[in-house]
Amino acid sequence: MHGAEHLLEIFYLLLAAQVMAFLFRRLNQPVVIGEVLAGVLVGPALLGLVHEGEVLEFLAELGAIFLLFMVGLETRLKDILAVGKEAFLVAVLGVAFPFVGGYLYGLQIGFQTLPALFLGTSLVATSVGITARVLQELGVLSRPYARIILGAAVIDDVLGLMVLAVVNGVAKTGQVEMGAILKLVLLSVAFVGLAVLLSTWVARLPLERLPVGSPLGFALALGVGMAALAASIGLAPIVGAFLGGMLLSEVREKYRLEEPVFAIEGFLAPLFFAMVGVRLELAALASPVVLAAGAVVTLIAILGKILGGFLGALTQGVRSAFTVGVGMAPRGEVGLIVAALGLSAGAVNEEEYAIVLFMVAFTTLFAPFALKPLIPWAEAGLKGAKE
Amino acid sequence: MHGAEHLLEIFYLLLAAQVMAFLFRRLNQPVVIGEVLAGVLVGPALLGLVHEGEVLEFLAELGAIFLLFMVGLETRLKDILAVGKEAFLVAVLGVAFPFVGGYLYGLQIGFQTLPALFLGTSLVATSVGITARVLQELGVLSRPYARIILGAAVIDDVLGLMVLAVVNGVAKTGQVEMGAILKLVLLSVAFVGLAVLLSTWVARLPLERLPVGSPLGFALALGVGMAALAASIGLAPIVGAFLGGMLLSEVREKYRLEEPVFAIEGFLAPLFFAMVGVRLELAALASPVVLAAGAVVTLIAILGKILGGFLGALTQGVRSAFTVGVGMAPRGEVGLIVAALGLSAGAVNEEEYAIVLFMVAFTTLFAPFALKPLIPWAEAGLKGAKE
Repeated sequence: MHGAEHLLEIFYLLLAAQVMAFLFRRLNQPVVIGEVLAGVLVGPALLGLVHEGEVLEFLAELGAIFLLFMVGLETRLKDILAVGKEAFLVAVLGVAFPFVGGYLYGLQIGFQTLPALFLGTSLVATSVGITARVLQELGVLSRPYARIILGAAVIDDVLGLMVLAVVNGVAKTGQVEMGAILKLVLLSVAFVGLAVLLSTWVARLPLERLPVGSPLGFALALGVGMAALAASIGLAPIVGAFLGGMLLSEVREKYRLEEPVFAIEGFLAPLFFAMVGVRLELAALASPVVLAAGAVVTLIAILGKILGGFLGALTQGVRSAFTVGVGMAPRGEVGLIVAALGLSAGAVNEEEYAIVLFMVAFTTLFAPFALKPLIPWAEAGLKGAKE
Repeated sequence: MHGAEHLLEIFYLLLAAQVMAFLFRRLNQPVVIGEVLAGVLVGPALLGLVHEGEVLEFLAELGAIFLLFMVGLETRLKDILAVGKEAFLVAVLGVAFPFVGGYLYGLQIGFQTLPALFLGTSLVATSVGITARVLQELGVLSRPYARIILGAAVIDDVLGLMVLAVVNGVAKTGQVEMGAILKLVLLSVAFVGLAVLLSTWVARLPLERLPVGSPLGFALALGVGMAALAASIGLAPIVGAFLGGMLLSEVREKYRLEEPVFAIEGFLAPLFFAMVGVRLELAALASPVVLAAGAVVTLIAILGKILGGFLGALTQGVRSAFTVGVGMAPRGEVGLIVAALGLSAGAVNEEEYAIVLFMVAFTTLFAPFALKPLIPWAEAGLKGAKE
């Protein structure tokens, strides 16, 4: 019965997440942070009851996928397109500022060109899961600033993939491989474009007439399939899941997709956030160099996204624009993958990897704490503008 | 992005299960068989799109756990206790007949004592998942025969564990290790007893006052926790999940537990049944000896459980008693684990393992096909008795 240990680990994660969610709600703090800290508590850093491993990592990834699939279900394409210009600007500026900032800071503290490029690249990609959860928790997913964040996160992921391809190509062959990058760009633009085109078609598709067991069953397969397709191109699976959800957003009420998907998310998403905590190697961060450089890099990462979001979404008013920037701040797995690629290419050492780890941890913790007071402030601004 | 291939595999499994469920419903055949055959279709035997692996196996196990957790939620302890005597008899007889039958047949076709004992042991444990799904699909979980099957499945699992411990002890040390077996019996009886005792207490527990995020979150943790506890004793995780669900059955309406758990089951349980199909190594069965002996062993396995069920549940009338026997017929993972233990102890060879595999496959396929007409017949009998 090989599954026993994983079942026990999931039990610890669920229980700890439940208790921490209770505490954080009581303390009027973001519940999602409680779930992350639940993972720190039961993980190797403290109690040692739960360890990283393929099975738990995959369950966590499924949790993020269902979270973004659910968010996609609640997002209509036309609402995203309505803020498309802002989302595009936010994504481009939010990629450019942290990349340049990270690169220049790397040079300044004595990195070679290549490690500095990797540092910049690791600051590029927003990990929108934690922001999506906070927006969902506060019930503001339908607001313009939330739509901008979601749209920008999709574009940001494509841009991040391109930057990574360039830097990785330089690291491996010393030059920019235009062919490979063009292929990547075409593939990812085609994927997003296909999802957009399909969305009007799926909205009119009578799912009950498809040769499937149930519309819900088809919807779940579609969500997982889009996540798989995104992942096989190199995009984040959650971006695929989000697009898959958006495909179905026009028919979500007709087929009652929301409640079941929300239930699956409710089971799996806390595992995702708790595993963020489990992965947090606190010991790796406990060096003065890592702490000092990590703090500066975190600041660059946050300010870069805030500036990008602010400038890109200024049409929505100062408060919304600022909220967009903060919402784009969390970095996640992609930042770590970039640093790990640099590590395996010999361009980045363990200490530089730890700096990125620090940045990922603190941008992730920062956003929910900052969004919690920011969102009511932005909401008040939106109301003021209407009156 | 290591998760891409697993996401793709899940997509294939979900989609194939959906299409096969559609076909089997159209053909008025058991949907669950369609799901199993979906796994055969996309698995190594045919298309080769999906392969066995730790991640998918674990997701499948979670699917079985949520299936039985859901069934437990719909089962009140007092309904099981009301048919407790029958359930106990069904379990004891349904363990004894196939064990003796398998042992004697093994001797007859020339097995040594030990391999024959392993063959008998592999026929012991009912795998109640597929029967539970059929009962759920037909909406008859509340009927006395369904209660007897569920109660008997729990006792059957404890008995099966005991038989395995005896035979495994004999294989390893040549003698029956009374101490180890006594410990096992005490542990498993204590576990089931504890669940029974707790159930009145949990029914009165105000879950909304516990320091947890939500009653549902607590319920999910409890279900997984009970499955983990059962697994760590050596019982089937699904037995723990069933008892966990039963613990909460009195409060399922108060806290609206059913719909979310049903949604999670709806996502994961098809993966469980499809993975049964993926694991089906058709090639291993394609030998005349395996086919001939496999057919006889399958017959012993089915008739042994039918006889046990029939004699044990005769108080409920002939039709219900027969249905109980058929419902107990499916064997699963435990049978394969027994054969694999025999294999690793050198007491069983590859061909004998394949015979058990054959038996597991065909008892699993047999039950849904047989139950589909049997249940209306038993229902008609129950109505007739009332009039």
